[in-house]
Amino acid sequence: MLRTHNCGELRKTDAGQTVTLCGWVDKYRDHKGIVFIDLRDRYGRTQIKFNLADDSDIQKTAWQLRYEDVIQVSGEVTARPDDMANPKLPTGEIEVHAAALDVLSKSKTPPFEPDGQNLPNEELRLKHRFIDLRRQELQQAMQVRHRLTKAVRDYFDELGFLDIETPILGRSTPEGARDYLVPSRVHHGEFYALPQSPQLYKQLLMVAGFDRYFQIARCFRDEDLRADRQPEFTQIDVEMSFIERDDLIETIDGLVAAMAESARGESISLPLPRYTYHDVMERFGSDKPDMRFGMELVDIAEVAGDCDFGVFKNTIAAGGRVRGLNAKGAADKYSRRILDNDFKNLVGEYGAKGLAYFKVTDGKLDSSIAKFFGEEQQRSIIQKLGGENGDLLLFVADSDKVSSAALAALRNHLGRDLELYDPSEIQCCWIIDFPLVTWNEEEQRWDAEHHPFCSVVPEDVPLLETDPGKVRALSYDLVCNGYEAASGSIRIHDAAVQQKVFDLLNISAEEAERRFGFLLEGLRYGAPPHGGIALGLDRWVMLFCGYDNIRDVIAFPKTQRASDLLTGAPSTVDDRQLRDLQIRVVE
Amino acid sequence: MLRTHNCGELRKTDAGQTVTLCGWVDKYRDHKGIVFIDLRDRYGRTQIKFNLADDSDIQKTAWQLRYEDVIQVSGEVTARPDDMANPKLPTGEIEVHAAALDVLSKSKTPPFEPDGQNLPNEELRLKHRFIDLRRQELQQAMQVRHRLTKAVRDYFDELGFLDIETPILGRSTPEGARDYLVPSRVHHGEFYALPQSPQLYKQLLMVAGFDRYFQIARCFRDEDLRADRQPEFTQIDVEMSFIERDDLIETIDGLVAAMAESARGESISLPLPRYTYHDVMERFGSDKPDMRFGMELVDIAEVAGDCDFGVFKNTIAAGGRVRGLNAKGAADKYSRRILDNDFKNLVGEYGAKGLAYFKVTDGKLDSSIAKFFGEEQQRSIIQKLGGENGDLLLFVADSDKVSSAALAALRNHLGRDLELYDPSEIQCCWIIDFPLVTWNEEEQRWDAEHHPFCSVVPEDVPLLETDPGKVRALSYDLVCNGYEAASGSIRIHDAAVQQKVFDLLNISAEEAERRFGFLLEGLRYGAPPHGGIALGLDRWVMLFCGYDNIRDVIAFPKTQRASDLLTGAPSTVDDRQLRDLQIRVVE
Repeated sequence: MLRTHNCGELRKTDAGQTVTLCGWVDKYRDHKGIVFIDLRDRYGRTQIKFNLADDSDIQKTAWQLRYEDVIQVSGEVTARPDDMANPKLPTGEIEVHAAALDVLSKSKTPPFEPDGQNLPNEELRLKHRFIDLRRQELQQAMQVRHRLTKAVRDYFDELGFLDIETPILGRSTPEGARDYLVPSRVHHGEFYALPQSPQLYKQLLMVAGFDRYFQIARCFRDEDLRADRQPEFTQIDVEMSFIERDDLIETIDGLVAAMAESARGESISLPLPRYTYHDVMERFGSDKPDMRFGMELVDIAEVAGDCDFGVFKNTIAAGGRVRGLNAKGAADKYSRRILDNDFKNLVGEYGAKGLAYFKVTDGKLDSSIAKFFGEEQQRSIIQKLGGENGDLLLFVADSDKVSSAALAALRNHLGRDLELYDPSEIQCCWIIDFPLVTWNEEEQRWDAEHHPFCSVVPEDVPLLETDPGKVRALSYDLVCNGYEAASGSIRIHDAAVQQKVFDLLNISAEEAERRFGFLLEGLRYGAPPHGGIALGLDRWVMLFCGYDNIRDVIAFPKTQRASDLLTGAPSTVDDRQLRDLQIRVVE
Repeated sequence: MLRTHNCGELRKTDAGQTVTLCGWVDKYRDHKGIVFIDLRDRYGRTQIKFNLADDSDIQKTAWQLRYEDVIQVSGEVTARPDDMANPKLPTGEIEVHAAALDVLSKSKTPPFEPDGQNLPNEELRLKHRFIDLRRQELQQAMQVRHRLTKAVRDYFDELGFLDIETPILGRSTPEGARDYLVPSRVHHGEFYALPQSPQLYKQLLMVAGFDRYFQIARCFRDEDLRADRQPEFTQIDVEMSFIERDDLIETIDGLVAAMAESARGESISLPLPRYTYHDVMERFGSDKPDMRFGMELVDIAEVAGDCDFGVFKNTIAAGGRVRGLNAKGAADKYSRRILDNDFKNLVGEYGAKGLAYFKVTDGKLDSSIAKFFGEEQQRSIIQKLGGENGDLLLFVADSDKVSSAALAALRNHLGRDLELYDPSEIQCCWIIDFPLVTWNEEEQRWDAEHHPFCSVVPEDVPLLETDPGKVRALSYDLVCNGYEAASGSIRIHDAAVQQKVFDLLNISAEEAERRFGFLLEGLRYGAPPHGGIALGLDRWVMLFCGYDNIRDVIAFPKTQRASDLLTGAPSTVDDRQLRDLQIRVVE
């Protein structure tokens, strides 16, 4: 080894030892001819002091050191005088007095310092990712990611799960997102597809009898990317046989606790709360409620249908809903301009045509539309929303779907803006009893809410033929701080039930055979009851680190245009490569 | 859970308990109206006895059970009479007397039984992989693979290595094998490439200061496949900073011991032996010597140059080599037909024009060409090869390269055929001091023996300009039972030395910049001395399982034509998908 110690471990008790350290020049000070540098590596920083005769080779070399040079230094560990100690550094009580210096590698002047100060734009940082990765935050993210995945593997190993690799070069079975395709050289005109998830393989592993499977699996979606998505992402993929829904949920409860413990040293109290889809849609307008704060939705249909405010009254008459929420003590926080513009635009993004609001003043509603509500109606509204003087009550009158989405967005905005929670806190919950299918108005058909292999709550099976919209699925989402952090289901293991669901989804026998034939074939040869889940690893690391940029938890991420600015991927390729593959780019 | 126990855990001490088991019908016997089945799951097999009234529903259902049906059975654990116990099964002392039976899933008649008897051809088994995976051997392989990777992760975690994921969608930098390409939809005419290894990324992680990295990484090579290759494979990928060659080798020694312990419960004695390239080429004719047996090559140049046998004499005169090996006691094992046909063809595959052989009889050489060797010469040959009566001595006279390759192949064949080793034994060794470059006669240029980033033994640097063929690389291979099981090197971390090597390899500055520009740029901003290695995981699992088919250690492997017979990948895709990607298949 080129070093005896790393830059994070020397203490006062090591004083007197001769050590050799390696690392990067992090700080550099020339103080009256004495050179001080902070030497940095993954483990920490140590102060090195060069105080030799001016004409010594070492001193001359030390004067020429610059930021990010890589050096090897030997010398004696020396305790600093108490008034010179740096209490912020674990190594702050000592310094190393250099007796030998070897420059292992000079650095060009870097385009930015990795000290986290004056960060340049992300594009420049992605291009020089090898420098940006030296930053404390990214070093930290990779360490959390390592500890987290280690904890996941240890947890599942302990429970007898097998870590089994499934193929990356698979078959295209497009569903939801687009597949990334890989032309085959050997099979002319044919393509592999990169997996959107190992779903079909893991179900086949259950058919094969592996009983308990997990994998930390790379998945791919050729989507137009949102801020928190990457074309390739990693999921913790799980499947179990001979279980029921609650067995799976309990297993994942334990996993979440193990992850929190490893990443943050926090203990999470179990079981994680479970809510039905119906319940959270009523209370929060969303199946991904942020549970770090309250501010639940309140239905005022009774008052609204009876008042003189046309918008409310007509909405109720048309079968719509009028619901609101109470921004406690926020009556004077927002100007009319913000309420009428920003907030109205926010709910408008979800299709809501308007936003009604009242301040509570002297126990009454205070607003330009307050006059449309009688005294008793005002009291009733205030009481239902638990209003007190100084509160701001906000209402959306619209269809169930639109009012839910609009109020959920408004609630999230207010929760963040009013600082109703500690951003570093993590609150997870399960959402269960999702509808099996949702009606696709545009295409006039039922779509699978989860996926076509999702099983049905047994007592709802008869409804498949009579009232499909009411059928509850044996699916479950794990929601964390308002994000969908995991999603899974008990699968159909019976070919006949599977056929019924395909019929409902208007998937013909031919189409099913073409897309999922190999899974269906598997189900015919002795499939155990089974179910599973997938957790988005990148998302979990982000949550545990408290970061809000998914690229900060991935070593070599891609931009929203799916480019790797470091390597320049994707790129043009040699004509010979395309000739070998017998494909051509169409102009 | 749908079961209280698994099918491998009940013992005599459990007698009297009421249990519920789930699994597959493995064996089925109807003995005078009493149905016996062996119920199978991943954990073992348990005998179930159905001995109820003939008209009971359960008995009727039991009569209809068939192989591979999935059932749930409840009943009392009952000790079998001693003479009915099955000592071959861990559960053989008990049986469960069924009181309840639920058929969870009927199976169609499977195309073959997963009991390992009468195995059909591999094609049929790959097509029904979900049945073949139920076989003991494949269940075993997946468990060994799981344990092995767990041991690898634990080992590196303990040593402070970080598990860091590198991209699958990367940049095409073709080298050696062909890249698999992925057309970009967003960037018209551009492609990602699937990585042949994370080489460049892991070096950049060292530049970024991560110091100790490992990953169990999926890699891809679009090659025409050999029997033991797959288009996608998994490697244990490792890189370390601030180390020298021997530090890396010691680290991997410990890894090999940890793997052997986890996979086989065997302890391997360390350090693993190290041999120089020159040494093993002389002694075994190969840089991948199988060390489970001796039978070393012996040079008889002195005698050969002086004898009357033209082939030997002329070879020596032309600067070639005459070497042989001693197949102890095999004088009567092989007929002349085998020697003159099979063995001659074998060495012929490596370019050798002939094979000379002698039996040792009465202390003399016995062969049609023995007459060309004087008594003293015969004695000298016999003595050099340690010959005794009954031995068979075989010789190849050719160039150094051809005679090495031919004799190495012959040695491997004889070792196996003469059963000179225990096939279940594992013998690993390191090969070091490889040449940095080899002369490519065809293209009249120097090729990198390992890869262009491989560093040089310091005292050989001056030879780069004067005698490149003599320059030793700081590379190392780990050879196991004659396979290259790992390969690595200390990398160049100095841009100037890197330039010298590129010059030698005739890689122009432009080409280097185009292919590896992002790595070179990284090296300019403070690169630590670093090195690493990659171990072929599939190969190691195969070695530890003692299997000889790589497909038996991969859950969903591909054929030698790179097809997945289970899913039908690769396949044609929708025109819409190709339109989205703006590519076309060329007829």
